[in-house]
Formats: sequence, C-alpha cells, structure tokens
Amino acid sequence: MTKLTFEISMSLDGFVAGPNPTLEQPLGSGGDLLHEWVVPLEVFRERHGLEGGETNSDSAFVEETLANTGAHVMGRRMFSGGEGPWEDDPNASGWWGDDPPFGASVFVVTHHPREPLTLGATTFSFVTEGIEEAIRQARDAAGDRDVQVSGGASVADQALDAGLLDELLIHVAPLLLGTGVRLFERVDPRPIELVRVVHSSRVTHFAYRVG
Amino acid sequence: MTKLTFEISMSLDGFVAGPNPTLEQPLGSGGDLLHEWVVPLEVFRERHGLEGGETNSDSAFVEETLANTGAHVMGRRMFSGGEGPWEDDPNASGWWGDDPPFGASVFVVTHHPREPLTLGATTFSFVTEGIEEAIRQARDAAGDRDVQVSGGASVADQALDAGLLDELLIHVAPLLLGTGVRLFERVDPRPIELVRVVHSSRVTHFAYRVG
Repeated sequence: MTKLTFEISMSLDGFVAGPNPTLEQPLGSGGDLLHEWVVPLEVFRERHGLEGGETNSDSAFVEETLANTGAHVMGRRMFSGGEGPWEDDPNASGWWGDDPPFGASVFVVTHHPREPLTLGATTFSFVTEGIEEAIRQARDAAGDRDVQVSGGASVADQALDAGLLDELLIHVAPLLLGTGVRLFERVDPRPIELVRVVHSSRVTHFAYRVG
Repeated sequence: MTKLTFEISMSLDGFVAGPNPTLEQPLGSGGDLLHEWVVPLEVFRERHGLEGGETNSDSAFVEETLANTGAHVMGRRMFSGGEGPWEDDPNASGWWGDDPPFGASVFVVTHHPREPLTLGATTFSFVTEGIEEAIRQARDAAGDRDVQVSGGASVADQALDAGLLDELLIHVAPLLLGTGVRLFERVDPRPIELVRVVHSSRVTHFAYRVG
C-alpha cells in the first residue's frame, strides 16, 4: 500500500504562511522565511531550472521524499490564491509559471469545474467532488509511488481529521511568525508516532506516522 | 552571564495544556499526555521521592537542564490554578504537596501579596511587581546558575516579547491536542536560532537561542 503524506514548512509557533497574502507575496508577510532552508539546495534549484546549489542533510531528506512522490493533491487557494469562478481568477494558471516544479500529476480540489491544464511536465486536474475523490484520482495516477498532500493548511487539516493521511512531514523553521495561517487550527485530538527526525542549523524535519 | 531559559512540553499542534482544567486535572483533558515521556525517567522519579526509573537520552537532557537551574519563575495559575485573594484559593499551597520537586527558590508572579512559603527544600516567594522583578529576584537567588521560567504559556509569551528570555527548551510530544492552552498564542515575529535537537521515540527536545 502506498502512502498518503502531507508535507509542509511550519514556524515554531505553528504558522505555514504569514498574514496579508497578496499576488506578489502569496505566503504573506514573513512567509518566505519558512522556506529559506530549501532555496539554497541543489534539489530545489534543479526543479526550478537553476544550476548549482548545496547538498547536505536537508537535501537528502527532500530528495528521498520527492523520489517517492508520484502525484500531488492541493487546495484551490494553494494553487492560485483565488476563489470563485476561474474566469475571474487573475492567477488561474497558478504560481509556478510555464514549467511548474512538480513534474507529476497535481489534483486541485475546487468548487469550480475546469479542463486539465498542462504546463511543462506538470498536469493540473481540477476535482470538484471533494478531497477524498482528489486523493483517489491521485492514487490512480501515482501507481506504486506515494501521494503527497501539498497544502494548504485547511486541506491538510481536513485530510488528517478524515483519517486519510498516513504520514506528516513537518519542516520546523527556526522562527516565530506571530500571526498568519495556522496549521492544526483545531484538529481532532490523537496520538501520533514519531518515526524520524533530521536537522541542520536551518530547519528540523519531522516524520510522524498518523495512520 | 547566566541564562534565562523557558522550558515546557508542547503538543505538535502547539498546546501546553488541554481544555477544561480542574483541581483534579490541572493540565486539562489530555494534558497529562504531554508529560508521559518524563514520568518513567529516574531523574523525574527521584525528584518525586520514588526509586528506580529509566536513564536514556531524554533523562540526560533533563539532568543537564536541572543541574544548571538555580531558581524558577512561574505564574500564579501554574502555581495553584487559582486567581484572586489567596484566602479564597482552595489550592493555595500549590500542586506539589509537602515536598515539591524544585529543590530551589521559586518566584511566583501574582497580583496578591503573601509571605514566602517553604515546603520541603523549596521556598516559594510571591512577587507583585511583575515578571521583570520576579526574574531579577530569581537571578539574585540563583547566583552563578541559570533561571528557568517554568510557565504557564502567558508568562512565557510575556517574557519572550519583553526580550527577557535567552533560550527556549521545547519538548515536542508526539500528539495532537486540538484545543487547550496554546503556547505562542500571538507573539512578536522574530528569527530564533536552533542550537540543539535530541530525540527519542517519546519526545523531541529543542533548544533555541532567542536573545
């Protein structure tokens, strides 16, 4: 059985985005700081068409996760930041330009139907039947590889409380954001099982089993 | 210069106590689960007058912290769970019985003046001039050892935002509580520096420099 994993970078005080997101600053004020650890890595730069970069304990963790991921599921807000009909969404092609870094099928949970969108090696499919159906389609697309729920916080909390997730991969960045979008805003209480911790001075990676 | 440290056990979703605290269950519903990792340790049992127990990577971390701690600061709520005049507080001698496990001076921040209270090897002093004065008195009492802010969440957040803390020691327990008392409810945004991570299957210990 392949795994359904949720992966995200979080501040020590539990935020996965800062306050006041805009089209120019989709992660809100200070939100880019959550991802400072990943930007210098070779594995990140390669996916964004850049050369060079670092290889270290952080990149090993990321590479292992990426190698096992065959499809992604995300919320509409994470895809474009918008809501409502697609023709009114100024960011309807998503945040990632002509060649998004997924290189795999991405299933976007939305209330608004739309034909699939292919950009570079990534195809976005739009699923209006809810998160469970999006996960089912992603499992079909992933074959024997894992499916990753990529965010945002609301989709992740829903998947967790519905008992759908097998694993949480949380990258805890060394900062306090104070306000913004909280992960785990009010999830159901439950024990989880710590299976792995890897850290550098820039970030701590946690893997928890939640199934 | 000696350090001012804040130490606490927290769930992955950021809670340091569960909902609905009572005199019988001061940490609220599910809150005891935050401390399950420490109860089997020899260093914990010894402080509570019990024999036996485990020594492992968790106990090494706790022992090192305790050895360096010369005085504690805590809020009134953490001391007794009460508020208002002491004569109306049914738990005015605190949670810990005749021989509290501190073995050091404890400075309790309160609005209500009171003579010092000695129980076993611990003396509680009651400070009505605010947290900065409590920390000043604790530093005097600790001499060349460190001072620990022991909670609760509100006192810790105040000390952090006032720039008083040098270090955060956070024990992240493998569970989600969903509701209760949040640490970092809304602190000022700031970078912090990860200085140490130690973990077992039961808990992950973080040390962050915040000065």
